Amino acid sequence: MFEEPYLAPCATNYQQLTPLNFLRRALQVHADQPAVIWRDLTLTYTEFGTLVRRMAHWLKSQGISRGDVVSQVLGNRPELLAAHFAVPGIGAVLNTVNTRLNADEIAYILDHAQSRLLIGDASTQAAVDNTATPTVALCSAPGAGDGLDLFAGGLAEADLDDAPATETAAISLNYTSGTTGKPKGVVYTHRGAYLNALGNVVALGFDDRTRYLWTLPMFHCNGWTHTWAVTAAGGTHVCLDAIVPQTMVDLITVHSITHMCCAPVVLYMLLEHMTDPAGQRVKVGTGGAAPTPALIARMEELGFEIVHLYGLTESYGPVTLNDPVFESGTDLQQRAKRLARQGLRHQTTGGVFVLDDAGVNVPADGETVGEIALCGNTLMAGYYRDPEATAEALGSGVFRTGDLAVLHPDGEIQIQDRAKDIIISGGENFSSLEVEAVLHQHPDILLAAVVAAPDPKWGETAWAFIEVKSGCDTDPQALEQFCRAQLAGFKRPRKFILGPLPKTATGKVQKFALRQKAKEMTDEQ
Amino acid sequence: MFEEPYLAPCATNYQQLTPLNFLRRALQVHADQPAVIWRDLTLTYTEFGTLVRRMAHWLKSQGISRGDVVSQVLGNRPELLAAHFAVPGIGAVLNTVNTRLNADEIAYILDHAQSRLLIGDASTQAAVDNTATPTVALCSAPGAGDGLDLFAGGLAEADLDDAPATETAAISLNYTSGTTGKPKGVVYTHRGAYLNALGNVVALGFDDRTRYLWTLPMFHCNGWTHTWAVTAAGGTHVCLDAIVPQTMVDLITVHSITHMCCAPVVLYMLLEHMTDPAGQRVKVGTGGAAPTPALIARMEELGFEIVHLYGLTESYGPVTLNDPVFESGTDLQQRAKRLARQGLRHQTTGGVFVLDDAGVNVPADGETVGEIALCGNTLMAGYYRDPEATAEALGSGVFRTGDLAVLHPDGEIQIQDRAKDIIISGGENFSSLEVEAVLHQHPDILLAAVVAAPDPKWGETAWAFIEVKSGCDTDPQALEQFCRAQLAGFKRPRKFILGPLPKTATGKVQKFALRQKAKEMTDEQ
Repeated sequence: MFEEPYLAPCATNYQQLTPLNFLRRALQVHADQPAVIWRDLTLTYTEFGTLVRRMAHWLKSQGISRGDVVSQVLGNRPELLAAHFAVPGIGAVLNTVNTRLNADEIAYILDHAQSRLLIGDASTQAAVDNTATPTVALCSAPGAGDGLDLFAGGLAEADLDDAPATETAAISLNYTSGTTGKPKGVVYTHRGAYLNALGNVVALGFDDRTRYLWTLPMFHCNGWTHTWAVTAAGGTHVCLDAIVPQTMVDLITVHSITHMCCAPVVLYMLLEHMTDPAGQRVKVGTGGAAPTPALIARMEELGFEIVHLYGLTESYGPVTLNDPVFESGTDLQQRAKRLARQGLRHQTTGGVFVLDDAGVNVPADGETVGEIALCGNTLMAGYYRDPEATAEALGSGVFRTGDLAVLHPDGEIQIQDRAKDIIISGGENFSSLEVEAVLHQHPDILLAAVVAAPDPKWGETAWAFIEVKSGCDTDPQALEQFCRAQLAGFKRPRKFILGPLPKTATGKVQKFALRQKAKEMTDEQ
Repeated sequence: MFEEPYLAPCATNYQQLTPLNFLRRALQVHADQPAVIWRDLTLTYTEFGTLVRRMAHWLKSQGISRGDVVSQVLGNRPELLAAHFAVPGIGAVLNTVNTRLNADEIAYILDHAQSRLLIGDASTQAAVDNTATPTVALCSAPGAGDGLDLFAGGLAEADLDDAPATETAAISLNYTSGTTGKPKGVVYTHRGAYLNALGNVVALGFDDRTRYLWTLPMFHCNGWTHTWAVTAAGGTHVCLDAIVPQTMVDLITVHSITHMCCAPVVLYMLLEHMTDPAGQRVKVGTGGAAPTPALIARMEELGFEIVHLYGLTESYGPVTLNDPVFESGTDLQQRAKRLARQGLRHQTTGGVFVLDDAGVNVPADGETVGEIALCGNTLMAGYYRDPEATAEALGSGVFRTGDLAVLHPDGEIQIQDRAKDIIISGGENFSSLEVEAVLHQHPDILLAAVVAAPDPKWGETAWAFIEVKSGCDTDPQALEQFCRAQLAGFKRPRKFILGPLPKTATGKVQKFALRQKAKEMTDEQ
């Protein structure tokens, strides 16, 4: 009786889930409230809506249509936020690119994404010089006259689509940092973005009084979907287009920031420049490295509350949150120990498991190590133009993250080790394999092994252990020069250590031993 | 390129949206936290999960299977909450019935719903005596031995389904209160319930520290989907199985209640019994009638923060929320005036419109009256076994609510009157709510209801039915004087009738009965 046609979904009671609806709502119910603040510019939601529709019109005038990929290599500025609505709003797919990549890395992504158009600005111009993709530069500031100025008066506007053709249509394409060689293009859907954004609203408590400081790059997993989440809540996006510590301090004060997200390294920078406590409580989401007791203590003194997050590009950013409530008087070490966990899955995350090699849940004993596996609507549609890697990642019913963790009795997960040689430096993930691949091109190098070394400022940095070919000779300075030409700054080894590498009986480099050595050397410093 | 089969939804990245996932999450991540408190019983989520699986097993043993309707005529007790997961968890459809209906009304619903099984208890036994549906009574208390006892040790358990066959499958069947004849069976879906519950988590700020007092009957729109929402948040359900004011006061204190929802009339009862402020801030969602200045003031003194909600059975309960932030020192009358609005749509509500007769949006001027219309995923699938009424309600692309409202410039809606409640006197239209608002400023008035009475000269005039606060005294002459100062002549009630007001099971004043009474009294004159 419940299956009869008159009870089937219809236009009144079924809408495609899409973040476009969040903007539509904000335009209706938060019209005069501040949507975006950038430098000395404040846009209300009504004005932001105009910017979005202008961009939509301009994109169409460039021949962009349904299914096309539009790339952006931009810092956090209003146009990049607008692109999160304008690009999917005309049925196209948004590809945000890490501004810290070098020209070759960016060219690879644009080529692989078959990008139809690249939008950069003066600050990223150099990095996009040698791409075949048509490129347009935004003005350095409204009215500056040195590039495309969507703030100029009288520009035409195009209405956004109400919804995508299906809610599982692609909304964005985010390239991983290339943990196993070349970057992979992770496809997000309207449905996944909608649900993950709502999950973030719940997890971080965004509402229409939220003033969100964009310390996190929007190019990272669409800003962990906070581009859409803060808009869903009707909050205010405060853009920070470059990490300048004193600017962060000023913005936190001037705009009464309530939320921000970043890697611990950004917090360290902040601490060096912030002397007076914020006038309000600021919730800080951080991940990639566990916050240390010293960081937690100092942040608290300044009015910050730290929560710890975990996720991957493949999961639209964070899927778990650790936001513990402590009884008053709980010792700092205890709190730090607890905050080191990655926490509990979001409401919109389908499942977070810790599995043994056979795919069975490990006991929730806080001791048995297994691999974190994920499933649900906030997992990627797949890797673009890579059916094999997609099948390998998604074919088993769960996505195995490569991260090793324990499951605590209270359901919280805690990462023990990265399985896939990922290094997280200053919030940027990259693969030791990628760095090794570069080193292996050096004519004098026999074998290179790159591992993460703990770093008080960056969380981790890459260290390279090098076996030189017999009869050859090189030194750290030469190797540093060699890497400089081929790797983004955050990927370059901070130390080159020459000598024989420890190997297993079968000749595999014992990375575990090298990590251990790097840790000991760091401790001695 | 994005439409290729390898990017199509698969088991890893696509899950049916269903509230069953909220319980699954709570069982994993809030296992040892209190899920339900009832009398002197506290169940952790693990224990609540056991109760749910026992009910699922028991239902199967009664022959209940996919698509069957299971009815419940119960106050707020753990088994009713458990049924919100156990019944859909075996693919059946939950039909909760208002306990205050009489036997004939209940029999009509059970018959129309083609209910396969009815669960009641000692308190509802009399009302379900003459139904043809097989009936089972729950025990009056665990171990009492006077009915089905799902708390007893050693009962078998059945696992719940992971998900429904499709996410638009029916989850529950809620009968309207029949304002226009026979009750209609409103069908909710898994998808709608999931999204509306998430919208409520966001709107009311539920989290795992929430302690929710069940002053709202769960039989009312599945407790506005808070049955699922509080579970989604990992909060604690504190069951109140009958509205006993002193019990409410005690529970608020003993269990440090953070949230509750009810009609204003329940708050009036509470106020008469509560002398000391709650030790914590309590958020109270109320609707059906605007909170009066006197109510707001007194509730604030006691530590309550009132938010105003609006919705219908057809929209899974509330779709809008008014939760204004006032600058300190804002005058009480101003605040009450602002809180009288129904507010802004939830993030998960597709659309809230105020339309003129031609279906065009009225201007957002706070003056032009139109009809509230809704659309989106949190609108019902339709009316059960009533294709005609379904087509009429949903066929136009929006659901017209019958409620008349204005749209304020800031996007908030404010109800002017239920369509049928407008009073037209001497050719002038006015709202009964406006007159009631004036009366509610009178210090001696507990509750006022104004209706249209037929009048040979003016067509209609306003009559006021008044409940006076206990210990207070007033008379029609004094009230007439009071109104004279504040209302135009045509709006002033021609008659003031003092005495208790007839109310629905959910505490709404039965204006229909008052209109009836006014008509009879006029006829007798």
